[in-house]
Amino acid sequence: MLRDAADAHGLKVVSEVMAVEQIPVMLDLVDLFQVGARNMQNYALLAELGAIRKPVLLKRGMSATIEEWLMAAEYILAGGNTQVILCERGIRSFDTQTRNLLDLSSIPVVKRLSHLPVIADPSHGTGFRDYVAPLARASVAVGADGLLIEVHGDPDRAMSDGPQSLYPDQFTTLMRRCRIIATTLGRRIAPERDDGVS
Amino acid sequence: MLRDAADAHGLKVVSEVMAVEQIPVMLDLVDLFQVGARNMQNYALLAELGAIRKPVLLKRGMSATIEEWLMAAEYILAGGNTQVILCERGIRSFDTQTRNLLDLSSIPVVKRLSHLPVIADPSHGTGFRDYVAPLARASVAVGADGLLIEVHGDPDRAMSDGPQSLYPDQFTTLMRRCRIIATTLGRRIAPERDDGVS
Amino acid sequence: MLRDAADAHGLKVVSEVMAVEQIPVMLDLVDLFQVGARNMQNYALLAELGAIRKPVLLKRGMSATIEEWLMAAEYILAGGNTQVILCERGIRSFDTQTRNLLDLSSIPVVKRLSHLPVIADPSHGTGFRDYVAPLARASVAVGADGLLIEVHGDPDRAMSDGPQSLYPDQFTTLMRRCRIIATTLGRRIAPERDDGVS
Amino acid sequence: MLRDAADAHGLKVVSEVMAVEQIPVMLDLVDLFQVGARNMQNYALLAELGAIRKPVLLKRGMSATIEEWLMAAEYILAGGNTQVILCERGIRSFDTQTRNLLDLSSIPVVKRLSHLPVIADPSHGTGFRDYVAPLARASVAVGADGLLIEVHGDPDRAMSDGPQSLYPDQFTTLMRRCRIIATTLGRRIAPERDDGVS
Repeated sequence: MLRDAADAHGLKVVSEVMAVEQIPVMLDLVDLFQVGARNMQNYALLAELGAIRKPVLLKRGMSATIEEWLMAAEYILAGGNTQVILCERGIRSFDTQTRNLLDLSSIPVVKRLSHLPVIADPSHGTGFRDYVAPLARASVAVGADGLLIEVHGDPDRAMSDGPQSLYPDQFTTLMRRCRIIATTLGRRIAPERDDGVS
Repeated sequence: MLRDAADAHGLKVVSEVMAVEQIPVMLDLVDLFQVGARNMQNYALLAELGAIRKPVLLKRGMSATIEEWLMAAEYILAGGNTQVILCERGIRSFDTQTRNLLDLSSIPVVKRLSHLPVIADPSHGTGFRDYVAPLARASVAVGADGLLIEVHGDPDRAMSDGPQSLYPDQFTTLMRRCRIIATTLGRRIAPERDDGVS
Repeated sequence: MLRDAADAHGLKVVSEVMAVEQIPVMLDLVDLFQVGARNMQNYALLAELGAIRKPVLLKRGMSATIEEWLMAAEYILAGGNTQVILCERGIRSFDTQTRNLLDLSSIPVVKRLSHLPVIADPSHGTGFRDYVAPLARASVAVGADGLLIEVHGDPDRAMSDGPQSLYPDQFTTLMRRCRIIATTLGRRIAPERDDGVS
Repeated sequence: MLRDAADAHGLKVVSEVMAVEQIPVMLDLVDLFQVGARNMQNYALLAELGAIRKPVLLKRGMSATIEEWLMAAEYILAGGNTQVILCERGIRSFDTQTRNLLDLSSIPVVKRLSHLPVIADPSHGTGFRDYVAPLARASVAVGADGLLIEVHGDPDRAMSDGPQSLYPDQFTTLMRRCRIIATTLGRRIAPERDDGVS
């Protein structure tokens, strides 16, 4: 169903895989397997994802060092699956003003230590809508290769993560600004589509 | 001497104050008093700075919550000195890839909770030259009101903090990009001066 | 083989389970399944361990709050397996003097919030032989229900974790002291066996 | 007045010094100067305390590494004041079940790296009465040279820190147990006095 909806709109399907047994079922349905922070060191799962040939988004563990994160990626790469994308989603800290502490310094550090693409997730990284746009812009400015952002047509009725989901017009403004920042750095973000999907 | 050099070039003097006794000596020499992270909760010092009428740059303590940081500012404000500038300079974390963990989410949080200007210090926040420019750009993109950046004509011979000091041409490139990012957000950075000082 | 060695000496077998597929193989061989810190939030694994009827030792995740740790235990308990033992093994911190930061305050907190037994692992918690005995004594004094300690007849040749393994005579001295501390608190540790195994 | 009350009961006076100017006033009134966690890196204060000849209790900073703590002690020692006592009072962590995270592994680490005496403060370290006694026992068991514990005849009416203050009978039980633990380690705690003051 998710697959059908995506196909109807020319979108890709990203879904979180939480156990080895789910891989065969998901293989034909998703375009990208996401490994959550809690499973970053689930080595059985990582090894099995090394055996497939679909891209894997590997979120950083809640208190993983950058080195441990890159090591976890090696478990997938070692199996011959070279399509690994890293995702900074915030680490655990002592302040409660944000849900996690989005560590944007990890982006240039990863860039220096590895050839892997790395994106940022300011939605889970902050947990509050008001902070998503500023940190999304900062993620592009720091050199991230992409963003994972939650948007919802009616966030107050979202079944999950509503408080951190952007309204569609916030998303539009954000993407316009991100395009300028990316261009400043000599990079390119795909142009806005006619149907408003960025 | 520092004062003379500054006057000769039309610059301001910022210097760190570490003890109450230093205030009267510094009062005529500096334009802005900096309180370092280690003294963020030195209440005797903060109270005394509340009694003067020069601006104070208050760095965030190494493991201070944002609330504690704003509370520390109150010690200065309570004395009637309203010119307080906050400075995010990185907090203590478990990863050793950077000297501190520059917490850029603190900038929009401070903006929401307070009217005080807040700047970022990516030089001390990262401790390595290669990471300063990306995080400086990110600081502007996240909404910081200013940057504290170390630049040196010959950083390899700097008497302190050389490894985190930018080369002059790195600084020029950085400032050009920061101007574009700031403009994107509807803000303005002072134009480049003829003598190359930004 | 591990099973045979244990039976020959009247010992129990504890082994770490890292994936759901390993459970059926291990079921007849081990007396207690250990879930490591990296898998504390591997919910697929936890749920499966809820379906068996052998005790499970659940280590605290590297940056898990005490509440998250108790919630993880609920995944096992919810399946009807009531034999869950919690194990404090140290959390991630900023100091590098010890491998992890053994959080002994977690023991009385768990005691207040839950009825589950909780033990401490000062070997992994500190990573250095010299610190194991002091923190093992402290664990008993703080109210832990047991200890997980590495001992080796020849630690310098141990295949893993040698630097944190006690020499046999250190272990004997430690256990004598722990018995006195336990008795002081009105608790009992099983008496020393004739063959020196405590 | 504090001095008079102490003399009348044969007690010593410990008081916190927060600024250089307070030292001369306090010099004849207190037996031990306490430096709080917030001032651990107030170097002007430390240097001045190096010039006096009364003992100084140096609390560990909220996120100070053990090395930084020992370095701070050097500022006092360098002035010729050799009477420095270190005090572990808990570091900042991500869990909110306790006020701070009492790091008991710091005690044996300090013992190995330094000759200075080191005590523990489970009252500020935990912030809750129920956790003070377990962690006080653990502090003695781990090798601390002393304890800093808050006791109050009527904690519910205490002007500060009531929730973490022990009732007198809790204190009596605790001290009896601590004496046994200390004896087990070949150490001695002064015997109970006739008037109940331990």
